[in-house]
Amino acid sequence: MPGKNAFYAQSGGVTAVINASACGVIETARAHRDRINKVYAGRNGIIGALREELIDTGRESKAAIRGLLTTPAGAFGSCRHKLQDLAQNPAEYERLLEVFRAHDIGYFFYNGGGDSADTCLKVSQLSESMGYPLQAIHIPKTIDNDLPLTDNCPGFGSVAKYIAISTREAALDVASMCETSTKVFILEVMGRHAGWIAAASGLAAEREDDAPHIILFPEIAFHRERFLARVKRTVERCGYCVIVASEGTQYRDGTFLAESGLKDAFGHSQLGGLAPTLAAMVKAELGYKYHWAVADYLQRSARHIASQTDVDQAYAVGRAAVEFALRGDNAVMPCIVRGGGKRYSWHIGAAPLHEVANREKKMPRSYISRDGFNITDEARAYLAPLIQGEAYPEYRKGMPQYVRLKNVVVPKKLQTQFKL
Amino acid sequence: MPGKNAFYAQSGGVTAVINASACGVIETARAHRDRINKVYAGRNGIIGALREELIDTGRESKAAIRGLLTTPAGAFGSCRHKLQDLAQNPAEYERLLEVFRAHDIGYFFYNGGGDSADTCLKVSQLSESMGYPLQAIHIPKTIDNDLPLTDNCPGFGSVAKYIAISTREAALDVASMCETSTKVFILEVMGRHAGWIAAASGLAAEREDDAPHIILFPEIAFHRERFLARVKRTVERCGYCVIVASEGTQYRDGTFLAESGLKDAFGHSQLGGLAPTLAAMVKAELGYKYHWAVADYLQRSARHIASQTDVDQAYAVGRAAVEFALRGDNAVMPCIVRGGGKRYSWHIGAAPLHEVANREKKMPRSYISRDGFNITDEARAYLAPLIQGEAYPEYRKGMPQYVRLKNVVVPKKLQTQFKL
Repeated sequence: MPGKNAFYAQSGGVTAVINASACGVIETARAHRDRINKVYAGRNGIIGALREELIDTGRESKAAIRGLLTTPAGAFGSCRHKLQDLAQNPAEYERLLEVFRAHDIGYFFYNGGGDSADTCLKVSQLSESMGYPLQAIHIPKTIDNDLPLTDNCPGFGSVAKYIAISTREAALDVASMCETSTKVFILEVMGRHAGWIAAASGLAAEREDDAPHIILFPEIAFHRERFLARVKRTVERCGYCVIVASEGTQYRDGTFLAESGLKDAFGHSQLGGLAPTLAAMVKAELGYKYHWAVADYLQRSARHIASQTDVDQAYAVGRAAVEFALRGDNAVMPCIVRGGGKRYSWHIGAAPLHEVANREKKMPRSYISRDGFNITDEARAYLAPLIQGEAYPEYRKGMPQYVRLKNVVVPKKLQTQFKL
Repeated sequence: MPGKNAFYAQSGGVTAVINASACGVIETARAHRDRINKVYAGRNGIIGALREELIDTGRESKAAIRGLLTTPAGAFGSCRHKLQDLAQNPAEYERLLEVFRAHDIGYFFYNGGGDSADTCLKVSQLSESMGYPLQAIHIPKTIDNDLPLTDNCPGFGSVAKYIAISTREAALDVASMCETSTKVFILEVMGRHAGWIAAASGLAAEREDDAPHIILFPEIAFHRERFLARVKRTVERCGYCVIVASEGTQYRDGTFLAESGLKDAFGHSQLGGLAPTLAAMVKAELGYKYHWAVADYLQRSARHIASQTDVDQAYAVGRAAVEFALRGDNAVMPCIVRGGGKRYSWHIGAAPLHEVANREKKMPRSYISRDGFNITDEARAYLAPLIQGEAYPEYRKGMPQYVRLKNVVVPKKLQTQFKL
């Protein structure tokens, strides 16, 4: 008798390595065909389950599944759909279980951040109360590195590496030209609530006075005069100033800088313009020539320079999720546990989902320098191992070869349509 | 009797591979110590000569000079100083020759774009009329790929590769999420007058409907309604739309889009904001959720994913410059000549400087699709070989190892200071 089927879905913002977790899930499940029959993937994440759009990963070749290891973004599609509150509106959860029942799904693997950990927990609780046996395992993923209990989140190490490298490279450019041209360079990076990504730029510096000279964290209230004074002092001392700013940089009252006054020709407020806002401030008050960059999606999709450590860990949490399911676990999340030795090591542990859901891990204050503008040695020691190794993809004709899946959806079994 | 000394300077915006040209110059000169005594580099480009700040490259180890091959930006500093008109104000040119004479310089290697080719030509002419023998060789460099006579410019291939890869990666991200999130993604790239860099993004596409769906070139007048209609059609057809826009995108009357109406809280016009301007336009007219990125310096310093072809050619033009000088050439520029065969090949030719100076090579109309929104197969055939090969730098602790030179300035010999 074949085993139950498994359902896997990608949730929220994608990363350079979330497909490596998918690869870990599917390859491990294929190695246990006696226990896990088919692995279905949700088309566009959890809404694929709600709409009964299940991709049959069995239709993909071994090589295609292996190709996921080196392919960024979400190969099955992801979504930003947060399930409604269970107590007030259980319809979505009931629909999920209806679809799972129709397709004989006994394993639910949900690959996402804090919100999806919460969803995964609720699905697990409901399956119990509704008498439908389901093992729900959450697979951690987020570039923001803000999940609790795990030492770090798969997806973060690769963004960290990209931002650290980009900061070092751009800084060399500015240093070359600062005598007669640009004196201030601003790189805006992701991180609405936590400054982990901006912090990683600190790894670009090897010596005193190396860039980045100023890092802006959401955790530290922005103070206009202190910021401008630091820019001025840095330009006078080094000849130039490189600033890396979290998109979530905010004033003490919680106002985002990016929302503070830019308007377009139609009078609409311009959002997401933190870097130009800071640049305009520097120009108006100090008169320095500036340039700015906004990395946006480039940073979280940069598989061409992914961290080998990150890829290994992303695969490992996918594999562990299946292994946990096979040993009977429910409502858990594989997490990354850092070894205690001087040399970096890690292994996979298990975190109970009720301790993961709805908790956000911000930067410890001890990771941020006293003046609030840089990282400490403690932060450096934490961050450095996460960017180790270059997991290069293969190239053909000068371009990285990223896999394209067939993504064949299996026939529907339910008569009912579900309205999202 | 030792030979004359050489002077080398980097000019204008730096690139991921301009130091590879420096490496070619210095290594080749070192192999001919009987003819070329010392190689001095201008500190911060030509202003280093005007100020008599000459870096003695002889103080750098063999390994450090080799390290230039894999180090982005300008290792000796560059500048945006355009020499004044020779006829009206010969003072700067006379100062150059005075410094060259004091330091026994017989070879002038100027590594830059169109403006510096013009400077190099004038220095050569003046040395003749003033009876001071000097061989002036221009070494091509520009990410803009806008120099005439050479098939392509060293520096361009690496930007092209970076932009093509980044476009492919970000497009996978958008495609993953478009069902419930971002539908339009805009990547702003460099290129004020010529659309070569934006064109390179077209290499990201392998099949019909692949991103980029819209490329905006400075060569094609921007038409708001046609643009919006194309965005709408693309989203309806593909689910998402990826746009790569040259910073120099302009209306028919020559107004840059980036200058069209954004104002900050102080009422200052916001420059360099093409991507947010387009995003606001899309949002206001079509209502789609958008994201945008501005690559800025990241694109031209991205040595971590430089094109091997580009690095090879950058080194080769540096080497050839010295070889040309040694065979007695003057007022020439080594250029890249594409072989005629089906398989890409190239060799170094010589272009007379008076044919290079002050001419700008724009994209041929035949490289841009009839509708003005994409590249043709002809463009693809031209561009594809330039991004071949991955010239990875070495890494230590997860970060690329870029060389730091000592940059020791030799004692001044002149009593006079020169006021820039």
